Amino acid sequence: MQKEYKVGIIGFGTVGAGVAENLLLNGDVIAKRTGVRPVLTGIADLDITTDRGVKVPAGILTTDAAKVIRESDIVVELIGGTTVAKKFILEALSAGKSVVTANKALLAHHGEELFAAAAKSGADICYEASVAGGIPIIKALREGLVSNRISKIFGIMNGTCNYILTRMEREGADFASILADAQKLGYAEANPSLDIDGFDTAHKTAILAALAYGKWFGIDAVYVEGIRELELADIECADELGYRIKLLGIIKCENGNVQMRVHPTLIPKTALLANINEVFNGVMVEGDTVGQTLFYGRGAGRQATASAVVADITDAALNLAHDCRQRVSGFTAGELFTRQLFEDEVVSRYYLRLQVKDCPGVIAQITQILASRSISISSLIQHETRKDKDIVSLVILTHPAQEKEIRAALSEITTLSVHSSPVKLLRIEDI
Amino acid sequence: MQKEYKVGIIGFGTVGAGVAENLLLNGDVIAKRTGVRPVLTGIADLDITTDRGVKVPAGILTTDAAKVIRESDIVVELIGGTTVAKKFILEALSAGKSVVTANKALLAHHGEELFAAAAKSGADICYEASVAGGIPIIKALREGLVSNRISKIFGIMNGTCNYILTRMEREGADFASILADAQKLGYAEANPSLDIDGFDTAHKTAILAALAYGKWFGIDAVYVEGIRELELADIECADELGYRIKLLGIIKCENGNVQMRVHPTLIPKTALLANINEVFNGVMVEGDTVGQTLFYGRGAGRQATASAVVADITDAALNLAHDCRQRVSGFTAGELFTRQLFEDEVVSRYYLRLQVKDCPGVIAQITQILASRSISISSLIQHETRKDKDIVSLVILTHPAQEKEIRAALSEITTLSVHSSPVKLLRIEDI
Repeated sequence: MQKEYKVGIIGFGTVGAGVAENLLLNGDVIAKRTGVRPVLTGIADLDITTDRGVKVPAGILTTDAAKVIRESDIVVELIGGTTVAKKFILEALSAGKSVVTANKALLAHHGEELFAAAAKSGADICYEASVAGGIPIIKALREGLVSNRISKIFGIMNGTCNYILTRMEREGADFASILADAQKLGYAEANPSLDIDGFDTAHKTAILAALAYGKWFGIDAVYVEGIRELELADIECADELGYRIKLLGIIKCENGNVQMRVHPTLIPKTALLANINEVFNGVMVEGDTVGQTLFYGRGAGRQATASAVVADITDAALNLAHDCRQRVSGFTAGELFTRQLFEDEVVSRYYLRLQVKDCPGVIAQITQILASRSISISSLIQHETRKDKDIVSLVILTHPAQEKEIRAALSEITTLSVHSSPVKLLRIEDI
Repeated sequence: MQKEYKVGIIGFGTVGAGVAENLLLNGDVIAKRTGVRPVLTGIADLDITTDRGVKVPAGILTTDAAKVIRESDIVVELIGGTTVAKKFILEALSAGKSVVTANKALLAHHGEELFAAAAKSGADICYEASVAGGIPIIKALREGLVSNRISKIFGIMNGTCNYILTRMEREGADFASILADAQKLGYAEANPSLDIDGFDTAHKTAILAALAYGKWFGIDAVYVEGIRELELADIECADELGYRIKLLGIIKCENGNVQMRVHPTLIPKTALLANINEVFNGVMVEGDTVGQTLFYGRGAGRQATASAVVADITDAALNLAHDCRQRVSGFTAGELFTRQLFEDEVVSRYYLRLQVKDCPGVIAQITQILASRSISISSLIQHETRKDKDIVSLVILTHPAQEKEIRAALSEITTLSVHSSPVKLLRIEDI
């Protein structure tokens, strides 16, 4: 018994074309493995004339999204954005259709509303492709590691940033020149802010945190810093000290206190996560039972994302075939933490890079300020600066300290007369 | 609505105790996340007096496995071996009970019979913990990557071997001394053959190949070489050439031809898989859609294995709650390949280490033999041997060649008068 289900795609862009292609090429494989066959029956887009490099069956392309919703069992939203996409998903859910989406921004901002609509209609909403592209991390976190209290998640979840950081380090080039080249090569958008300012990673962090701790925290709960301000000097100093800098989504729960952050982070070069390069993604999940795990793969791109979308389509089709929709619901509220830490309360190790005048007593003044706030130094390097002979570069790594203490110390340091340009503050995770 | 299901464990050893502990500690977490609660109601073992370090509810320990099967919804087989374990699983399935097992040897040898019994009874049989411990690789391969034709799987799937290889490399020590120490520390069994001779990895390889290609090939289809014969000199030569040696389970499908092999393998040091050390496991899966993925974590141990077993228990409980047993069946036959390659036909790159007399024309003779069989050399190093001044060590890396050609060439080489001790043959994978 092989059951067929009608799949309608809304949004025939890069990922939409990849999903269509995958369904057409590997439909047989899916049917053999699962006993269900998702059949591509409709594709809606405003532009139905541009060649997307995939030959779809005659007559299935339309500009009428409502028709695709009406005539499908499973509706795949791939138009992105948070307005029209939301409208289509809500329409599909209220018509009882299973929904698959890759839209992390929409979920991060409006997840609760969408899951409430799904619960009301009894329909499935699946979103494996919203985090880390082809890596089945949602399934791993929600099913494979279901018996674990999650203590840590560290994710490299933005391919553009990881590509830029990899090239800055390898080529000893600065941020602006690599970004420009990445834009030329299609690895970065013309308007790169969503990626390089950390918001895309924050969306994904919010989604993973919701699954780990049973509360839809939303995007505003995530502290965000991107990589725009990162200088080659920081990458080089980190390297000298045995670290590599990655843009991480960080989720931690210690004694019931949850923290969610996105920022460039120094991690030991020996850590597996530090060796994930180029556009690849990796997510480390630590659970109380399983210990450390890591999931690696392509985080974006037409094909890798399609792999996750079609896995979701198959899951939804299996649920239809076995009459068990919402067997694993999109999101289950049920708080598994005590409270969320404010950013000020977070304890971390820090990397400070200061430019100071090369005169007696400078190090004493700075280290005294740190000591007065119980910030302990784990290593310190003084570098000469070639440009200006009177200025030296001072790099300090600290032992764990509270964010508010380090910020107060930095305020004091910047008032010193020996201090020259803004202090560079980065965080360290000893994974 | 929170549904409870009775879980009975057969086998109260290391993993059994870990599963009991996890169910007792994290039952609430599972219930909050999924709406089902697996409740530990019975544990059978021949020895019910030894303290396993976990306090189980009064009265649930028994020596009567049949009683545990009778009174459970979900039966967890953790006694290992291929005789009694098989009997209990068949009894449980024929009574319509869902079964969870971590028994890779049993599956590799008798998988087909067990899945046929499950299909007949309509009950679930789950075995996530049978491969790579806590890593949810079965779920990833069968569900997360369902839309992919699998081209390659490379797995470090035996913690004992990886631990020994890691220490040999780090400490510059030979196999025998590290094995002895590993046995003292509990990282290797008193009879280590199952691990170090590659059979355990072969069991896991057979299971993954079955899932990837829809045929239960069984253990005899896997070519197996262990790490017992590996010398420190090989690890050092590999290192010099930019490679690290890992015991890999290798599954490949090229043009429909499937090959399954387990042997020590040179892989580039820069590959993520080469950086998986100590007792950790890692499985790289390459699919036509997703590209390269990697799954990493603890491959054994009380807790990590329990994480996978309890994930299976939860899956089985969800299927009971939603009346959708066999939603994803244990194994679905449906061949996704053309034929299996004999070991002779396999094409690989090779590493050869020879001891030869230090006299004119030696390299010419050897390279001529290789050339006569169209085996092309990619690099060659001649090392002086300290022990015997007349003998030099010759290391050759080849371009891809067929196994039967390389074996024939080696036979010829060993007949040369300049040749001294057995040739060391290893395989290379440029992951």
